[in-house]
Amino acid sequence: MSTFELLHTDSRSAARRGCLKTAHGEVETPAFMPVGTAGAVKGITPQQLRETGAGIVLANTYHLLLRPGVDVVEGLGGLHKFMAWDGPILTDSGGYQVFSLSQLTKIDDDGVEFASHIDGAKVYLDAETATGIQNRLGADIIMCLDECAAFGAGEAQLKTAAERTVRWAKRCKEAHANPDQSLFAIVQGGTEKALRAYCAGELVKLDFDGYAIGGLSVGEGHDNMLKTVTHTTQLLPEDKPRYLMGVGMPGDIIAAVRAGIDMFDCVLPTRNGRNAFAFTENGPLRLRNNAHIGASEPIEAGCDCYCCTNFSRGAVRHFFNSGEMLGAILLSVHNLRFYQRLMAKIRQALETNEFSDWADKQLKMIIDY
Amino acid sequence: MSTFELLHTDSRSAARRGCLKTAHGEVETPAFMPVGTAGAVKGITPQQLRETGAGIVLANTYHLLLRPGVDVVEGLGGLHKFMAWDGPILTDSGGYQVFSLSQLTKIDDDGVEFASHIDGAKVYLDAETATGIQNRLGADIIMCLDECAAFGAGEAQLKTAAERTVRWAKRCKEAHANPDQSLFAIVQGGTEKALRAYCAGELVKLDFDGYAIGGLSVGEGHDNMLKTVTHTTQLLPEDKPRYLMGVGMPGDIIAAVRAGIDMFDCVLPTRNGRNAFAFTENGPLRLRNNAHIGASEPIEAGCDCYCCTNFSRGAVRHFFNSGEMLGAILLSVHNLRFYQRLMAKIRQALETNEFSDWADKQLKMIIDY
Repeated sequence: MSTFELLHTDSRSAARRGCLKTAHGEVETPAFMPVGTAGAVKGITPQQLRETGAGIVLANTYHLLLRPGVDVVEGLGGLHKFMAWDGPILTDSGGYQVFSLSQLTKIDDDGVEFASHIDGAKVYLDAETATGIQNRLGADIIMCLDECAAFGAGEAQLKTAAERTVRWAKRCKEAHANPDQSLFAIVQGGTEKALRAYCAGELVKLDFDGYAIGGLSVGEGHDNMLKTVTHTTQLLPEDKPRYLMGVGMPGDIIAAVRAGIDMFDCVLPTRNGRNAFAFTENGPLRLRNNAHIGASEPIEAGCDCYCCTNFSRGAVRHFFNSGEMLGAILLSVHNLRFYQRLMAKIRQALETNEFSDWADKQLKMIIDY
Repeated sequence: MSTFELLHTDSRSAARRGCLKTAHGEVETPAFMPVGTAGAVKGITPQQLRETGAGIVLANTYHLLLRPGVDVVEGLGGLHKFMAWDGPILTDSGGYQVFSLSQLTKIDDDGVEFASHIDGAKVYLDAETATGIQNRLGADIIMCLDECAAFGAGEAQLKTAAERTVRWAKRCKEAHANPDQSLFAIVQGGTEKALRAYCAGELVKLDFDGYAIGGLSVGEGHDNMLKTVTHTTQLLPEDKPRYLMGVGMPGDIIAAVRAGIDMFDCVLPTRNGRNAFAFTENGPLRLRNNAHIGASEPIEAGCDCYCCTNFSRGAVRHFFNSGEMLGAILLSVHNLRFYQRLMAKIRQALETNEFSDWADKQLKMIIDY
C-alpha cells in the first residue's frame, strides 16, 4: 500500500509539500499525473513520458474495461507491464466516463448500466465490480466508484449523487481485495458547500488512503472551482493525500495547490499539444499561426525538453502544417515537460518558503490563458 | 564532399562492403536510408531514428520545396538543423515526385512545369533550379534531376526520358555550386538493357560522385528489377557508391546487394508500421488480427528495439485497435530497426565471407513477403 508523508505545510497558505510512497516508486507532491487514457499517454512513448519528469501516470478504467478488457490486461501481466510503465499508476473508477461518455441505460443505488460509446454494448458497473476491475488491473492507487452529476444539476440531483457516492465508497472499501493498492474516495457535491461537507465528513469517517475532489472543472469556472476546493480541503485529514480530479490549466493548479491540493491530472498538455497549442511561461503559442513560419527560436526559451533543445518554432509549425505526426509528438513532449517544470517550481517554492509570493506573481501573469 | 571507400568485394557475388564518409559522419554500406519525406521520418523523432541504428536519412526536395519552401529551411539554418538530424542526409532531386505526384503542365528539354499536389500552384523545375535548391537545403548528398518514365512506357518514351536524364545530369553538374555536397547521377532506361547501357555510359563519362539506379520498383516485379540492376551495376565504376532508389522489400534488398548495390531507401518500414504491419524474421505480422489480442510475446523474439523489449503483441494490437498513436510509433520503430538489423547482418556476412550462402538461405525464407 502507498503511504503519504507530509513534509511541509506553507506558513502563509494551505499549500503542502509531500511525498507519496508506492511499490513502484515515490511521487513528490504536489504532483501532476499525465493521462494515459487507454494505457498510453497520447502521442508519446513511456520512455519519452519518463523524460518529461512524470512520476505517476493515470489510466482510465472505463476505457480499459471496454477495450481491450480486464482479462486481456491481466493476462498480459497487469497494467504496469501492459503499458510498459514501471512507475506508479493511478486508475480512476470509470464513474466519470460512464456519466460523460456513455449512454446511461439504468442507474440506481445498486449501480449503473450503460451502453459502450464504442459499440453500444451494455456494461454494468457497481461498487464491487469497479473495485474488482481495478484490483485486477493492478494500479498502485485505485478510486472508489462515484456518481458525478452534470454541471447545472439541481440541488436534489447533486444530493442524490453525493449520497450514492458515499454509499458506494463504503461498498468499495469493503470489496477492496488487493492490499498492495491504496484506495482513494471521491468527494462529490457540486459547488454546494453543505453537500461537500456532508460527503467529505462521511468519507473521512470511513478512513480512506486518500481523498479526491470530483465533479469540478466541468463548467463552473475558475472562481467557483477554487471556492469549492478551498472549502473542501479544510474538511479533509492533513495526513492523507488530496487529489483534484481533471484539473487543469496552469493557473487552476497553482491556485488549488495554495488551497491544499497534492495531486492533479488533466488531458490538456497532450490534447492541446496535438492541436498545435503550446504552453509557455509567456502564455500560449498557437503553432499553426503563420507568424511562426520562419521563427528560429524554440517553443519556449530555457525549456530543457527534447522539442525545445532541438527544434525551431518554424520546424514545429511546418510539421503541423504538413500533417506530420512529429508536430503532435513534439508539442505533447513540450507541454508535458511544461507541466512537470511547473510542479517542480511549485515544490521548490514550497521548500524555500517562497510559495505564496511566487503563486501571487504567477497567477497575475498567467490569468490570461 | 563525401568519399567512398570500397572495403571488400564478395568473392562469389557482386556484393560490396564499403564506407561512405561525409561531413556529418560515416555510413557503413550496404546501407538503408529511412525516408524523411517532409523533413521528418513519419511517426518518430530523430532521437528514436538514431536508436534504430540509421546512419543516413533521405528527404524529398519536392515536398520541402512546396512546403515550407527552400527560403524557410535555409533561413532556419539548413536541413540538418531544421530536421534536428546531425548525421548524413541525402536529398532527391524532386524528379520522381514531379512525375508521380503532381499534375504535369509542361515538359520539354528545358525542364518541367507542374501543379503542386497540395494547392495546385504552378512550380517550375529544371536542372539548374533542382540543383540550386538542393545546394541551399544543404544535404550531404544531392541528386541530379531525372525524368522517370512511368511503368509501361514504350521504348520511344523511355529513350526520350533517358536522353533527357543524361542532358539534365550534365547541366546539374555544371550548376552544382556547393563543394561540401556530393552529386549523384541517376541511370534511367526502364528495363531496356540498351537504354540502361547508354544512360550509364554517358553518365559515367561525366564522372559523378555516385550513381543511382532510378525508375525501378514501379511495377516491373522482383525478377525484372533484379535483371536490370544486375545489368546496370556492371556498367558502373567500382570505386563509386551505387544507390538503388525506392527499393524495397527485404528480399529485394538482399538480392540487389548481391548484384552490387550499396545504398537503398524505401518508405515501407514506416508506411507499413503505420498500417499495423510488422516485419519479422519469420515473416509479416498484421497486428490488427484478432489472434494477437492476448499474445504476450514481443513482435519479434530477439529484437532489441524499444517496442520489442517493452511491449507485448497484445498491447501493440490494442493501441492500433484503440486509435492510439503509440501503435504506429512502436511499429515504425520496430520496422526501422528490423531494416537496420537486416543491413547489419548483410554487412557482417560480407565481412566473414558468408554472404552468398546467407543470402541464398534468406531469399528462400523471405520470398513469401
